[in-house]
Amino acid sequence: MKVIIVGGVAGGASCAARLRRLDEKAEILMVERGPYVSYANCGLPYHVSGVIEKESSLLVSNEATFREQFAIDVRTNCEVVGISAAKKTVELKDHKTGKVTTESYDKLVLSPGAAPIRPNIPGFDLPGIFTLRTVPDTRAIRAWLARNDLPGMDTYGGYQTATKAKRAVVIGGGFIGLEMVENLVHLGLEVTLIEKMNQVMPPLDPEIALLVKRRIEEHKVRVELNDGVAGFKQAANGSLEVLTESGKVHPADIVISAIGVRPEIDLAKMAGIEIGERGGIRVDEQMRTSNPDIFAVGDAVEVKDFVTGQWSLIPLAGPANRQGRIAADVIAGRKSRFRGTQGTSICLVFGAAVASTGVSEKQLIKIGDKDYEKIYLFPNSHAGYYPGAKMLAIKVLFRKSNGRLLGAQVLGDDGVKARVDSIAMAIQLGGTVYDLEESELSYAPPFGSAKDPVNFAGMMAANVLRGDMPVAHWDSVGNAFLLDVRNPPELAVEHVAGAVNIPLPELRARLGELPRDREILVICRSAQRAYYATRILLQNGFKVRNISGGMLSRSMLAAK
Amino acid sequence: MKVIIVGGVAGGASCAARLRRLDEKAEILMVERGPYVSYANCGLPYHVSGVIEKESSLLVSNEATFREQFAIDVRTNCEVVGISAAKKTVELKDHKTGKVTTESYDKLVLSPGAAPIRPNIPGFDLPGIFTLRTVPDTRAIRAWLARNDLPGMDTYGGYQTATKAKRAVVIGGGFIGLEMVENLVHLGLEVTLIEKMNQVMPPLDPEIALLVKRRIEEHKVRVELNDGVAGFKQAANGSLEVLTESGKVHPADIVISAIGVRPEIDLAKMAGIEIGERGGIRVDEQMRTSNPDIFAVGDAVEVKDFVTGQWSLIPLAGPANRQGRIAADVIAGRKSRFRGTQGTSICLVFGAAVASTGVSEKQLIKIGDKDYEKIYLFPNSHAGYYPGAKMLAIKVLFRKSNGRLLGAQVLGDDGVKARVDSIAMAIQLGGTVYDLEESELSYAPPFGSAKDPVNFAGMMAANVLRGDMPVAHWDSVGNAFLLDVRNPPELAVEHVAGAVNIPLPELRARLGELPRDREILVICRSAQRAYYATRILLQNGFKVRNISGGMLSRSMLAAK
Repeated sequence: MKVIIVGGVAGGASCAARLRRLDEKAEILMVERGPYVSYANCGLPYHVSGVIEKESSLLVSNEATFREQFAIDVRTNCEVVGISAAKKTVELKDHKTGKVTTESYDKLVLSPGAAPIRPNIPGFDLPGIFTLRTVPDTRAIRAWLARNDLPGMDTYGGYQTATKAKRAVVIGGGFIGLEMVENLVHLGLEVTLIEKMNQVMPPLDPEIALLVKRRIEEHKVRVELNDGVAGFKQAANGSLEVLTESGKVHPADIVISAIGVRPEIDLAKMAGIEIGERGGIRVDEQMRTSNPDIFAVGDAVEVKDFVTGQWSLIPLAGPANRQGRIAADVIAGRKSRFRGTQGTSICLVFGAAVASTGVSEKQLIKIGDKDYEKIYLFPNSHAGYYPGAKMLAIKVLFRKSNGRLLGAQVLGDDGVKARVDSIAMAIQLGGTVYDLEESELSYAPPFGSAKDPVNFAGMMAANVLRGDMPVAHWDSVGNAFLLDVRNPPELAVEHVAGAVNIPLPELRARLGELPRDREILVICRSAQRAYYATRILLQNGFKVRNISGGMLSRSMLAAK
Repeated sequence: MKVIIVGGVAGGASCAARLRRLDEKAEILMVERGPYVSYANCGLPYHVSGVIEKESSLLVSNEATFREQFAIDVRTNCEVVGISAAKKTVELKDHKTGKVTTESYDKLVLSPGAAPIRPNIPGFDLPGIFTLRTVPDTRAIRAWLARNDLPGMDTYGGYQTATKAKRAVVIGGGFIGLEMVENLVHLGLEVTLIEKMNQVMPPLDPEIALLVKRRIEEHKVRVELNDGVAGFKQAANGSLEVLTESGKVHPADIVISAIGVRPEIDLAKMAGIEIGERGGIRVDEQMRTSNPDIFAVGDAVEVKDFVTGQWSLIPLAGPANRQGRIAADVIAGRKSRFRGTQGTSICLVFGAAVASTGVSEKQLIKIGDKDYEKIYLFPNSHAGYYPGAKMLAIKVLFRKSNGRLLGAQVLGDDGVKARVDSIAMAIQLGGTVYDLEESELSYAPPFGSAKDPVNFAGMMAANVLRGDMPVAHWDSVGNAFLLDVRNPPELAVEHVAGAVNIPLPELRARLGELPRDREILVICRSAQRAYYATRILLQNGFKVRNISGGMLSRSMLAAK
């Protein structure tokens, strides 16, 4: 059996190595258009700033290792320029020699990835405007940053992190955009982030993304939302000008365009295989394309969203690696299948982390799914009495009808991964909010709380579903009666216009002051005391709901 | 309905607050023998050293809050001195007045906790020997540490952390013992830890506990295993001498005895309710004792081990809190049930963390369960190319017959909680190693790897169960043929006597050098290359197994 694997990074490299482990006899040829195989593309932004000091650190494996350890024929700088699905052949162009050869295959695996979108905007090809996908891209950005017109400083100095560039514009507030913002700030640049949407970090809901934006802004980054780039110009002094749709002009010594990626489907088109509704290669759960001898994996394919069952484009390294393994399994005659993607992700944001798993509320709204409820909570990352506890912001989405977990978003300075991973695992296994309520997670004061934030989330959501804590949200307060149960000194700091204040300890004695003919919405700082008040009022016959997240979630309102 | 709750910390306090939320009308009386309710007993060791600076930080709630927010009658310094289950009354002694009163109940909840074991050893009552359970205990230890005979320094100075004590002996290497060791080192004391068993941290298997011991020893702590304390003496200079069973004498200015806890069952005996086989109060899954009007929660009760189904004593704060909630639910007429305890725990060890969930191998051995396999792995806490990656040590136990997860132990400087919590969640939901293999956990280079350590664990275990990677362990090498596939420079550092070296890249060409009539066990540093070698050899007809964890797990052999 001869297998040709096109693309030697995440999915392709995983597939090749796995296939060799399963089949010593298979002839395996892995071709990669670029100069490197199996490099750490997730690390590229951090090499731009020198946080990852050496370029060689990014080269996780190499041709020699694939040859020697796996007996895999690897060809870099080698591009597929033709595929005949009928003859089961590919034409390979060696970019070093220019020579084109034809290779036959029994099975073909496409792992071409997704390419940065290059918008059709005037001036996009000007020098100083970059996208980031490969090691050579990183090298070019570093060289540009080190470039200057002073005599004797015109060469790029190895692992130097100093830069003569002063102002950077990053276009696009997704993962790569945010990582580039942070690394450019790290280099000392003044950074402007321009994002066409009303939020950064598209997988998040806008109110959580607002918290991310605030974090970024704390580091003096100018964030321009709701504005697209209209064009680029070279200014008189040689620097760039970024012109936006709203008419603004942002001067820049360097521009990073990170407005998203698009599946590379040229090869798939050549092979005549099916492209899906989202523009990616369509595969079944065994990573087989519409042609049974052609498989596809990684950022180029559409995957089923694990929670919604919808076709999605989710370019993440974890799923790409698993898909590569699964394609190898299937080629080797096994029955492995891909379970779909939860979109679990995490991103460093100036020392904090923001993470999500499962669906967002905006996705649910988009698909018209109304069988969900949400809660917000702001627990400490670990026991409040142990030094260093930091507030987490957590949003959890769950099925109203049965409590099944749908998604979670977590932001904070500490302990974010533990919480999102626990919930990701619960989602994968079909868990409910009741499972979170009863889950037994590790606790000692430096690491968590006896009731972990994940337990708290489960308890709150379960309280909602059991009817113990009817819940309301700031975006649908209407003209309900607002009851604030905080203590007067807290109100002095910030209060809600029109809310009546009865501190919780006085509530039982002052029930007569509350209306019986109107719905009461209860407020406190974090919604905990408001929950206690809700219980008191419910049992005394009032119609009442607790505003999830209290004053803390109110601060996210501006995102709406 | 009148409910009396005995014990105002974790389980009792949770029960009281939850019950009030569910039932505004219930009369709730919570009595606590000590001076404080709802204090942070998990934080006590950290207050000894001043890491938690203020004693007041430990007082999470207080009587006034319970009265005002929850309308709960709280009595501190109030001890139950009699229970009549027939009359449904308790006799309460107020330690401030000495007065004894009788209170009737409809439902009684016992949450008396577990008391430090006070061994019957000569000299245990000498001044300077302490156990640690309560805020007053902590205060006494701090006062003793600050005590000295210099004029003008004989009062305890508030939040002072300086100490005149120079040498401490901690007896018992469990959670509290290790936390006290660390905090005493933090205060600058020379610390000796004496442990009667052959390991520290009883929930761990000995080989993982050995890694913990090494961590402690790196901080100049003397760890004396396999030695019990025979007695205590006051030396001529006034300091203490700890005499051990092996005949050693350890001088000490302070001794902390932390050899374990024993359920407080005096009240249960008074009430005539059933005591279980492990010496704790026997309850059903609704926390009901053998008397349907008496409930018990927290460290005093026996719980079902979630994995083995065996009755166990697992004194942990998380389960105690959940049990308190469940007792309240049931008293309020709900159907909640306790799912059992996984024993999930974590402990800070000089900046590192050690955590476990589910069963240990030694528990499985003890109950004669042979349907299990184990793997060891030593992955990076996050992508190796991103700065600060640290090696984790992970052991995972799983069912040989169906892949169900049984337990995990994790040690490392970073990312321990995330991994043990993900696995704890998987265990809770009946997950298998195949679920770990396919799980989608959050990844970015500063936080994890595209294949998270949890995925790696799943892949390795699944490889074992699918027969792709027959596994061996250092403790059962016998006289198999040992093949080391590392490169010669690695062998120069450390090698295994008698092992034949064929570096992995040469293996395919040198198969003729290997025996076909003997089992081959393959070694490398971490068992990854050995896995590749195992695949090559298996497919070439050899009988072969991979030694799990490679040279890295060999270093734990000394524990056996």
